[in-house]
Amino acid sequence: MLNDNLKIIEELESSVRSYVRSFPTVFTKAVGHKMWDMDGKEYIDFFAGAGALNYGHNDPKMKKKLVEYIMDDGITHSLDMATKAKTEFLKKFNDVILKPRDMEYKVMFPGPTGTNTVESALKLARKVTGRTDIISFTNGFHGMTIGSLSVTGNSAKRKGAGIPLQNVVTMPFDNFVNEDLDTLEYLERFLEDGGSGVELPAAMILETVQGEGGINAARYEWLKRVEKICNKYGILLIIDDVQAGVGRTGTFFSFEPAGINPDIICLSKSIGGFGSPLALTLCKPELDIWNPGEHNGTFRGNNHAFVTATESLTYWEDKSFENSILKKSEMITQFLEGLVKKYPELEGKVKGRGFMQGIETPVEGLAAKIAAVAFEKGLIMETSGVDDQVFKLFPPLTIDEEGLEKGFNIIEDSIKTIIKKKELVTN
Amino acid sequence: MLNDNLKIIEELESSVRSYVRSFPTVFTKAVGHKMWDMDGKEYIDFFAGAGALNYGHNDPKMKKKLVEYIMDDGITHSLDMATKAKTEFLKKFNDVILKPRDMEYKVMFPGPTGTNTVESALKLARKVTGRTDIISFTNGFHGMTIGSLSVTGNSAKRKGAGIPLQNVVTMPFDNFVNEDLDTLEYLERFLEDGGSGVELPAAMILETVQGEGGINAARYEWLKRVEKICNKYGILLIIDDVQAGVGRTGTFFSFEPAGINPDIICLSKSIGGFGSPLALTLCKPELDIWNPGEHNGTFRGNNHAFVTATESLTYWEDKSFENSILKKSEMITQFLEGLVKKYPELEGKVKGRGFMQGIETPVEGLAAKIAAVAFEKGLIMETSGVDDQVFKLFPPLTIDEEGLEKGFNIIEDSIKTIIKKKELVTN
Amino acid sequence: MLNDNLKIIEELESSVRSYVRSFPTVFTKAVGHKMWDMDGKEYIDFFAGAGALNYGHNDPKMKKKLVEYIMDDGITHSLDMATKAKTEFLKKFNDVILKPRDMEYKVMFPGPTGTNTVESALKLARKVTGRTDIISFTNGFHGMTIGSLSVTGNSAKRKGAGIPLQNVVTMPFDNFVNEDLDTLEYLERFLEDGGSGVELPAAMILETVQGEGGINAARYEWLKRVEKICNKYGILLIIDDVQAGVGRTGTFFSFEPAGINPDIICLSKSIGGFGSPLALTLCKPELDIWNPGEHNGTFRGNNHAFVTATESLTYWEDKSFENSILKKSEMITQFLEGLVKKYPELEGKVKGRGFMQGIETPVEGLAAKIAAVAFEKGLIMETSGVDDQVFKLFPPLTIDEEGLEKGFNIIEDSIKTIIKKKELVTN
Amino acid sequence: MLNDNLKIIEELESSVRSYVRSFPTVFTKAVGHKMWDMDGKEYIDFFAGAGALNYGHNDPKMKKKLVEYIMDDGITHSLDMATKAKTEFLKKFNDVILKPRDMEYKVMFPGPTGTNTVESALKLARKVTGRTDIISFTNGFHGMTIGSLSVTGNSAKRKGAGIPLQNVVTMPFDNFVNEDLDTLEYLERFLEDGGSGVELPAAMILETVQGEGGINAARYEWLKRVEKICNKYGILLIIDDVQAGVGRTGTFFSFEPAGINPDIICLSKSIGGFGSPLALTLCKPELDIWNPGEHNGTFRGNNHAFVTATESLTYWEDKSFENSILKKSEMITQFLEGLVKKYPELEGKVKGRGFMQGIETPVEGLAAKIAAVAFEKGLIMETSGVDDQVFKLFPPLTIDEEGLEKGFNIIEDSIKTIIKKKELVTN
Repeated sequence: MLNDNLKIIEELESSVRSYVRSFPTVFTKAVGHKMWDMDGKEYIDFFAGAGALNYGHNDPKMKKKLVEYIMDDGITHSLDMATKAKTEFLKKFNDVILKPRDMEYKVMFPGPTGTNTVESALKLARKVTGRTDIISFTNGFHGMTIGSLSVTGNSAKRKGAGIPLQNVVTMPFDNFVNEDLDTLEYLERFLEDGGSGVELPAAMILETVQGEGGINAARYEWLKRVEKICNKYGILLIIDDVQAGVGRTGTFFSFEPAGINPDIICLSKSIGGFGSPLALTLCKPELDIWNPGEHNGTFRGNNHAFVTATESLTYWEDKSFENSILKKSEMITQFLEGLVKKYPELEGKVKGRGFMQGIETPVEGLAAKIAAVAFEKGLIMETSGVDDQVFKLFPPLTIDEEGLEKGFNIIEDSIKTIIKKKELVTN
Repeated sequence: MLNDNLKIIEELESSVRSYVRSFPTVFTKAVGHKMWDMDGKEYIDFFAGAGALNYGHNDPKMKKKLVEYIMDDGITHSLDMATKAKTEFLKKFNDVILKPRDMEYKVMFPGPTGTNTVESALKLARKVTGRTDIISFTNGFHGMTIGSLSVTGNSAKRKGAGIPLQNVVTMPFDNFVNEDLDTLEYLERFLEDGGSGVELPAAMILETVQGEGGINAARYEWLKRVEKICNKYGILLIIDDVQAGVGRTGTFFSFEPAGINPDIICLSKSIGGFGSPLALTLCKPELDIWNPGEHNGTFRGNNHAFVTATESLTYWEDKSFENSILKKSEMITQFLEGLVKKYPELEGKVKGRGFMQGIETPVEGLAAKIAAVAFEKGLIMETSGVDDQVFKLFPPLTIDEEGLEKGFNIIEDSIKTIIKKKELVTN
Repeated sequence: MLNDNLKIIEELESSVRSYVRSFPTVFTKAVGHKMWDMDGKEYIDFFAGAGALNYGHNDPKMKKKLVEYIMDDGITHSLDMATKAKTEFLKKFNDVILKPRDMEYKVMFPGPTGTNTVESALKLARKVTGRTDIISFTNGFHGMTIGSLSVTGNSAKRKGAGIPLQNVVTMPFDNFVNEDLDTLEYLERFLEDGGSGVELPAAMILETVQGEGGINAARYEWLKRVEKICNKYGILLIIDDVQAGVGRTGTFFSFEPAGINPDIICLSKSIGGFGSPLALTLCKPELDIWNPGEHNGTFRGNNHAFVTATESLTYWEDKSFENSILKKSEMITQFLEGLVKKYPELEGKVKGRGFMQGIETPVEGLAAKIAAVAFEKGLIMETSGVDDQVFKLFPPLTIDEEGLEKGFNIIEDSIKTIIKKKELVTN
Repeated sequence: MLNDNLKIIEELESSVRSYVRSFPTVFTKAVGHKMWDMDGKEYIDFFAGAGALNYGHNDPKMKKKLVEYIMDDGITHSLDMATKAKTEFLKKFNDVILKPRDMEYKVMFPGPTGTNTVESALKLARKVTGRTDIISFTNGFHGMTIGSLSVTGNSAKRKGAGIPLQNVVTMPFDNFVNEDLDTLEYLERFLEDGGSGVELPAAMILETVQGEGGINAARYEWLKRVEKICNKYGILLIIDDVQAGVGRTGTFFSFEPAGINPDIICLSKSIGGFGSPLALTLCKPELDIWNPGEHNGTFRGNNHAFVTATESLTYWEDKSFENSILKKSEMITQFLEGLVKKYPELEGKVKGRGFMQGIETPVEGLAAKIAAVAFEKGLIMETSGVDDQVFKLFPPLTIDEEGLEKGFNIIEDSIKTIIKKKELVTN
């Protein structure tokens, strides 16, 4: 039965499919941090929809609201017509998220996916400044449509465009060359020297922690200096918080601890709360010079997602959720640092921040092998980085400590299994 | 209360919002072809989510399936991991849609929106052919991300890119210059003459009926000749059936009556059935040379949409639905032709095909005025074309004849109202 | 000896060399319309440096002036510092060419080659209008550097760029599709329709007679309508008169009989008079918004060429030279029309205007064969067009009637020889 | 009289003119390192046609050969047909320059200017590698046509393009950030990291000493490491020796002391010997995969320049010329270092190598002022760098020591004059 279903995939789905190759089963049900496949096998989810399920699967309160909404024949699809579900979301987002953080931003619904919010951000930055170039950073990932792909570092993904990707200059992310080399001194030389071949860009776009690019966390001082440089040269600062935002690194916006004020913020993935497509582009009010419809998208008004998104914001009404994330993040860090010490064979290095941590290992293929063995043992975990050199822990933020420990155990078991095998081979 | 909610929109939402300006109310509920706003006012929906709600709002069977699925804690979000909901959709899509039409295609889930399927189609065409250019057509609309925008004709939308849009050549759509001038003779001269400055493109992309571009329907012979030219020069033919597909023009795929076999087909909007984000890219099996993950997207596995999409395909299990569309299309045509005759002040011309028809009027601002008055009278209807010169009838395909007639009456009343006012002014 | 010298070429010169392949000898001396090779063989020159030797080789008056200048240690190279040779040229160019034609233009020296003047014209048009796109025409040829190549039609040349050529839209030249189809109706539709995908361009660039593209002469009414369209839409009109100018079509500027006033004019090839590198970009005074040095080039002040250019302008002080060109052009036309009638095997068609005429033949390889046999018989003549489908007569404008007749005879002899051979083969 | 002539310039020449603004006189005659204007005023030439007059003005031996050639009705213009003048040049270039240096290269004549050789080099590199991008370096200058301008750093020049310049990545030249920061470590990180956003380029292009960019001399070890990196990644190395070559830095090719073997070498400016337009593109034989005519240009066969170029190579038949350059270079260095010490007000720094040296001063406008005063005192000298922050000494290589000293004196006098004035102002 499971095999019949996998066969359907193989026969009918394009070869572009990827995760089903790493996790070759058919899932049927999921609650919180647990998933079950057709055979009833249970899995712990340390993947969380690549950051789209920060609140876990089928959160009961959101589920209740969503079912009620559907039962009442609430509007499902509205483009950007006004609906009750939408206005309620806007109000609560303003009340719970923006106002308490002293943030004044206009909200745009650019189409329901991460790449849509990035594309809209780039357009707006170019319109506001009248400039064409964007500065992006090494190992950044921003999406797969041509605009977003242009600011994405991964060369295999870029090659997929089939055309030269233009109007972009890539600068070194924090620690790109080595820990001593100051990448921003380098960047600033290019901006200040009129003979550098680098024009003043419309914007810089970056993730504070690069998820796909290998779990690279920029230091807060580095982020602050980026903002300072942007201000100095009249460059807009776009923070792509699609993956690192909505609590993944410990705060609602990933950049809060850095104390910066981006001009444009991109949100998607977990903003819908329940795993349904939704994306937001936030911009400072004075930048909101869009003409009506200048950017649009059929599914920009996904009301089911508005309903669950509104409910999800309840998590942020006081500090308790945030505190719980920080506490559990600490557990993850300690676990990973312990692994690195205990298993020198990993040649491991702990990377990242909050619920966005992992271990980078230079041993070829090792991270993928660990993830593969872990899957057999009932844990879903992804690798990251251009050479898949990192295995990363992305549990739902709502996971309890017991769930975390269970996942840790599977990971450690998987590492042991692989090391033992290697020893056998070596001996 | 309604005004409070509209104020929220005004204060918090970006100025890029558009439809809420034409339809200034707040909707709460919708069933079939009817919608209600916060004040309880009922509207007939001749807009249908710009083609995303071909089966109307909250179709009871889909609704039932969806609620059951959610109640059972079915997977909501799965990237491209396999789920039961997904394999069931794939199987039924193959059984009900592809096989009976002798169509063999691989199915790709490129991210859940129209622009995603177009971007993936362009990438694939460039990869397969090793060429960079795409031929698009005047007044085509394919989406708002940079790749899709490049093949979109509308100059205001293009300008929004803020950068020159490249690797594209626009050729004249059927009847672009005038009815006598054969646009394909031009196109072919450009291809056959090595000094034409137009390189052999990777693909041609087109809609069989241009929805956003002014309800321009290409003749079937024209489509056949396009296919012939593509075959002659080894150019891939991409049909963007995002809006014209899924029954909108009378058949599941809009190009069926033309008897052509596109290399790549783009589907979105109504493919999810219920108005939830979903998109498919179909390609001939021999073109499926993607590397795993070469194109991807966080929400490409929107399982709620799989559930309703699967149920929606039931409509296509026999010919009855198709027949009902054709019959009602006929009513629309007759109504519109009647209007043109009866109201010469419109200087009107009936355009389009199936449930994708409208009247083009050269009188400046008239189409928009008709739509505005109709809204006051309880009908939701959009304009189309670069100068909003067309008002278009886009009811759900499931509307009953009574609903259609009601809508017709409102439209005629609106026209009368406007003409009367004008007469008063003129006199 | 001759072979030794050809061997040097073969061993040391890059494979990119081309004319030496069609004319495999080593030239030593040339006067007027005659050339001699190392073996003393005499040739009649119906090639004239592809239009760079309109006054023939080593014109005695220019030669005298040039030698005197060199003997007196005149400045050879001056970038754009002022020299006596330069100011004298400027003054005489204004007095003899511009003023009598009521033309007010600023003169720019953009670097001494045709591609330099085109590149500077495109830059200026983009700067003046703030737009990026240029409309070029099918089978246009404007040069081999990336900017000029972008507006060149030939696909083999374009491919040589190794990158996509951008910011250009190619429109059909006069008679491109067939004689009945109005290419400007087509062009104008693209400009007037905001959904055409073609943005308003900075400029249109064209040759009045396309030399490299197959000797296609635009009708004067067509040129007038192009100018009218440009005026209507605020598009600059650039006439590339590098090859067709300086008398080649019968008047100093090729567009004089059309009665148009281009915004920018590109001159090179014969403007130096003696075959030395020189180029001019003329622009209307109000367009001359260049910053100092915004475009430049080391050899833009080639004083040897100024000296001979000044002398060459004497030819234009009265109408006698112009009249002689017209008279001899008539002879060329009659000769070619006679050939077409007399030798139906050519399936020939006379093309072009003035001293820029030729015969197009659809018989594959025939034009090249005629040129090859003619070379053996002592005539230098080139083919043209993307498939080398035209053999073209490009004698110096100064050739006498006897020289013309001699050349005609060789051409006819060559045709006879080939036809006879074919008959032998056929029989 | 002089003023009348300057007025002609003002009235008729485009505002793009530049050097005539710095040197507002009209030159009539020049010999060796001396020039005279209409008023008979004598100037010492420390400018040398921006490197196009390395052998000085009107070198008597070249002059003799050139006049004889013209008197004998030698071919002036030949496109790329073979002439005696051309084969003699090719042979001597091979015998005197290439062979003794163990260099095997094919010679291409790409059109007679620097930008032409650069454009041809970029095309060839893209063709050979099948890649699109080029790595250029900060403050590099390679020409003004779109291809060459793309690899040029100066932002004012780049902006002149009016379109985004594409397919290029700018990397930091030696010492760009600061003296401690290793710019090649950066460059290599970008190449080795698959997530860097920088694709493997077709080629790197650079000048060993950047003339226009501020007289920046790359260290020989830096050049060696660039070559090593190119070899490691299969990137072609293009040395643009248009300005630094033909002896300007002390050896015929500027890169000889670095011991590197570029894949492609660009030559122009002084290669013609006499100041006439000529350019060469040298490529390793295995890279010579051009199709005939794939790149061309009307004036690529400038025979007058072949004649003088051939004669000029006589200078290189033994080491004496090279030795004299080195000796005089030493004098220049000592003079400049002396100035820096003696006049701390300059805040000067000596830059460059050989006959391509100058003083950079951060005092705004100072370099230009020195050059302006020197001109009044009878010396022609240019500034360089994006902010004109360098005054540079570019005498002909043939200048005698007396001439050098005279020039030195004028420069020092000019500096004194300016400093005195400032003191007066300050006091």
